[in-house]
Amino acid sequence: MKPLVDPDILEKCSLYPDYVEAKLGFRNHWYPTLLSEELAEGEFKAHEILGDRLLLTRVDGEVFAVRDRCLHRGVPFSRKPECYKKGTITCWYHAFTFDMASGELVDIMTNPRSNLIGKTGIAAFPVQEAKGLIFIFMGDDEPAALKDDVPPGFLDEDVCIRGIRQEVAANWRIGCENGFDSTHVFIHKESILLDGNDIALPLGFVPTSRDTFKVVTEEEGPKGIYDLLAEHCEPVFEGTVQGETVLQGHMGETRVASDISIWLPGVLRVDPWPDPSLTQFEWYVPIDEERHYYIATLGRKIATSEDESAFADEFENKWKDLALRGFNDDDIWAREAQQTFYKNDEAWYKEQLFEPDRNISKWRQLASEHNRGIQRYEHLL
Amino acid sequence: MKPLVDPDILEKCSLYPDYVEAKLGFRNHWYPTLLSEELAEGEFKAHEILGDRLLLTRVDGEVFAVRDRCLHRGVPFSRKPECYKKGTITCWYHAFTFDMASGELVDIMTNPRSNLIGKTGIAAFPVQEAKGLIFIFMGDDEPAALKDDVPPGFLDEDVCIRGIRQEVAANWRIGCENGFDSTHVFIHKESILLDGNDIALPLGFVPTSRDTFKVVTEEEGPKGIYDLLAEHCEPVFEGTVQGETVLQGHMGETRVASDISIWLPGVLRVDPWPDPSLTQFEWYVPIDEERHYYIATLGRKIATSEDESAFADEFENKWKDLALRGFNDDDIWAREAQQTFYKNDEAWYKEQLFEPDRNISKWRQLASEHNRGIQRYEHLL
Amino acid sequence: MKPLVDPDILEKCSLYPDYVEAKLGFRNHWYPTLLSEELAEGEFKAHEILGDRLLLTRVDGEVFAVRDRCLHRGVPFSRKPECYKKGTITCWYHAFTFDMASGELVDIMTNPRSNLIGKTGIAAFPVQEAKGLIFIFMGDDEPAALKDDVPPGFLDEDVCIRGIRQEVAANWRIGCENGFDSTHVFIHKESILLDGNDIALPLGFVPTSRDTFKVVTEEEGPKGIYDLLAEHCEPVFEGTVQGETVLQGHMGETRVASDISIWLPGVLRVDPWPDPSLTQFEWYVPIDEERHYYIATLGRKIATSEDESAFADEFENKWKDLALRGFNDDDIWAREAQQTFYKNDEAWYKEQLFEPDRNISKWRQLASEHNRGIQRYEHLL
Repeated sequence: MKPLVDPDILEKCSLYPDYVEAKLGFRNHWYPTLLSEELAEGEFKAHEILGDRLLLTRVDGEVFAVRDRCLHRGVPFSRKPECYKKGTITCWYHAFTFDMASGELVDIMTNPRSNLIGKTGIAAFPVQEAKGLIFIFMGDDEPAALKDDVPPGFLDEDVCIRGIRQEVAANWRIGCENGFDSTHVFIHKESILLDGNDIALPLGFVPTSRDTFKVVTEEEGPKGIYDLLAEHCEPVFEGTVQGETVLQGHMGETRVASDISIWLPGVLRVDPWPDPSLTQFEWYVPIDEERHYYIATLGRKIATSEDESAFADEFENKWKDLALRGFNDDDIWAREAQQTFYKNDEAWYKEQLFEPDRNISKWRQLASEHNRGIQRYEHLL
Repeated sequence: MKPLVDPDILEKCSLYPDYVEAKLGFRNHWYPTLLSEELAEGEFKAHEILGDRLLLTRVDGEVFAVRDRCLHRGVPFSRKPECYKKGTITCWYHAFTFDMASGELVDIMTNPRSNLIGKTGIAAFPVQEAKGLIFIFMGDDEPAALKDDVPPGFLDEDVCIRGIRQEVAANWRIGCENGFDSTHVFIHKESILLDGNDIALPLGFVPTSRDTFKVVTEEEGPKGIYDLLAEHCEPVFEGTVQGETVLQGHMGETRVASDISIWLPGVLRVDPWPDPSLTQFEWYVPIDEERHYYIATLGRKIATSEDESAFADEFENKWKDLALRGFNDDDIWAREAQQTFYKNDEAWYKEQLFEPDRNISKWRQLASEHNRGIQRYEHLL
Repeated sequence: MKPLVDPDILEKCSLYPDYVEAKLGFRNHWYPTLLSEELAEGEFKAHEILGDRLLLTRVDGEVFAVRDRCLHRGVPFSRKPECYKKGTITCWYHAFTFDMASGELVDIMTNPRSNLIGKTGIAAFPVQEAKGLIFIFMGDDEPAALKDDVPPGFLDEDVCIRGIRQEVAANWRIGCENGFDSTHVFIHKESILLDGNDIALPLGFVPTSRDTFKVVTEEEGPKGIYDLLAEHCEPVFEGTVQGETVLQGHMGETRVASDISIWLPGVLRVDPWPDPSLTQFEWYVPIDEERHYYIATLGRKIATSEDESAFADEFENKWKDLALRGFNDDDIWAREAQQTFYKNDEAWYKEQLFEPDRNISKWRQLASEHNRGIQRYEHLL
């Protein structure tokens, strides 16, 4: 089986080799998959992440996930899911029947006396549902605590989360770096989010010191990095070419995005955004080498059920179209345009980073050092 | 030129290495190509099998086949077949003209004094037409007898054959194994063939002895294997999951499919099927690594021309739609669903066969031992 | 990085190894790209040739070309060209701004104090506009004189040129060889160009001596080869198969195409054609391994502006549809039909050339010996 990345290339990227190799993502981490609302009681759905194909179902409210491939001849259950007893999946081909919770082969209807029954099975993956997202632990190690794989604040009891899920034709790392990249703000200079929202949106940022980030790698809790833009950068509101002013940033009274951080296994937190009362949490979940799911959510602190339904209304009628689509759609096409270059692994050392990208280098190093494993094709067979 | 299959994988499949390697089929065997009715007098048709591209034509009733690629600059004649003298093909590009029977270069109209004329040519393949099918011997050895490459009974004088040809997006071996696999009966549990046909169709089979097959490898005649289901298996009519009955097989009075056998180079015989008066013969002919032609035929013994036209009517008005399409369409999608896994060669040792699959293992061994060669990309250049 | 062509194959093609290797074309030559009329003042256009992606623009009438990939994160400028100062291109992603003439990084609007400014840049390519075509020098050597990369007569002051540009799904070498190949005339035997044009068009040519070409490889000027058909060949007007006459060539009074020559880096001259008053010049410009631009032009000597507009009318109303499309469309599909075979590198030694193809062998040798370099994937990173 050929290596994910040519060893010569990895050597040239010696500051963050794991990151360059992790085309399919990092293993033994929690990833959001479907939104809770996407999986009804008794429903079966196929879902591809980290190059693997999963089958999800919901039984008495609880979600279970197994690899979507029969032990016997390898066909996907999801091609025609058959369920004859709650909590099981029967393969449509030869009636191998598995327990959805454990993956155990509990029966074979075409040969009920087979010696295989009760002695083998398929991979089952730990599942946790939180804040309207179905998280799956992709790996075979003992699962970590979910709180160690999400940004600070996301699981807070008083925070209500709402979001959307989209497929993007770019590697997941392109997603992470587009999100954490401060100067990519330039692409948003004409965003419809700016119409009628009095926010300050500069054209770029001049770093005023090298120390513009805070790395979090305590034993307990998530591993991530804060980019302290507000403290160590000077926003650029005048765009100049060869001494001539040619562009203006959007001067507004409202300060947003003062606190931007990225966390393993690939999730961004922007606080506050797109409004002083909201925080954006967004995941870039590997599908395969060339695609990721972009799961963008907004969180707001709520105290009452009136708060909650007010937020639900505001989300549906304002923020979903204006921020999660209108504003972030620019990011989607930017990532897809970047993929053409980065699908060649040589790109990781042929690129030419500049001063504001120091946070991106730091993120690559943190991810290389603190990931719990690299997903490889061997894991999928 | 890279090997068809990684040698490490072949070593892990040491019980039937030739079979695992024969992605493009076995060489030096007879294969059906077009139905006779698909090729009219004087017509030229391109046809791809075993990774090779053929040009077929019919001259005074007789069919000829050459490789569909000009000797000179490699273009396919079939792009614009030009024929200026019966029994020849002239390349549309530079007028190299070949005899369709021998492949010999008999003239070059653009340079009629060329030294090449009469001294070289293209590959011509032996052809035999039988029972409404055009058979071609794919190889360069002395052709075997056609009767050694078809199932017993197929060529019997009193048997009338009718069939259809379909393209399936799966390797040819997936086709063979789907056909010979007894417990795949499970996928047909709701087939429209069962409506109004009083046949017995169980959900599966429990082997009651290890000795459920008969291998035929005499020097003369076809090489194949019978699965003696009726003798050594117990049909399963009650489907149970964890002790609970959840499904019923189709209990009918009519016994069919008591005699199932598979033959080199990849053809199944089911007798009787789909009716006590009929036998099904079906071929899985490699097109390329990922596709095969599924040529499914029904045979009936006939004594008179009234019998023959009664069968023709019955075939057109009943069996074609009910059996060769309605029932077998389930097999087509099952094979296509299996291809995703088996297109990775690792599948041949990652699969988990169970007791009723012993006939499949036996078939793989027989094919590995008795084939007349493996088709390789070198043969196509 | 894997080699363009397997070394074993190159060894078997030892008469013209460079030619066989030059799938992506020859480097350090001038190639026509867009027609002048395809690029308006201030417009930006992406254009792929020799596997590379260029961005072209026109500033105060002059054309400039840079590689269409930002230095920083590799995105194509052409995805959303932004120009804030004449003669510059600003990357839409992080506002890296380059001088279109030199490729120099002249500003970064998102971080105007970056140390990179003025110290680095992207590849800029020499451009010359002549006879309605935009020529680009694809390489990094000192550019040659344009006159050394075009056929004799093309740049003559009294010659007016008009043409069209088409994309063909075949390697560029297939284009060259189809054009220079004398016996491919066979495919044009029913061309609409023959209707009402009294030209002589034989079915083929019998070489009457081995010495049917004149090689031009002076130090100065273009390198090419003339095929002296009129002097050393006998035209074939009777097509025979096994002694029987089956076809007739087109007997006309007008003699055309008496002087056919091909020139590095891949351009044909047919004189006169399609009429005694015209000369055809046509280029086969590599796009990638599997496609080329076919830039076909006609030239006529003119003395006055009335001559020029008469030619313009005649070109638009007659020759464009009759010759550059009607007649040459046959060549396009012939090339595309040939690509299937030649996309396998083995084709270069599996082909079977015949006597009239000696000019093609000579062309391959000339190209192998006199090219200024082979374009490789390394050059594109």
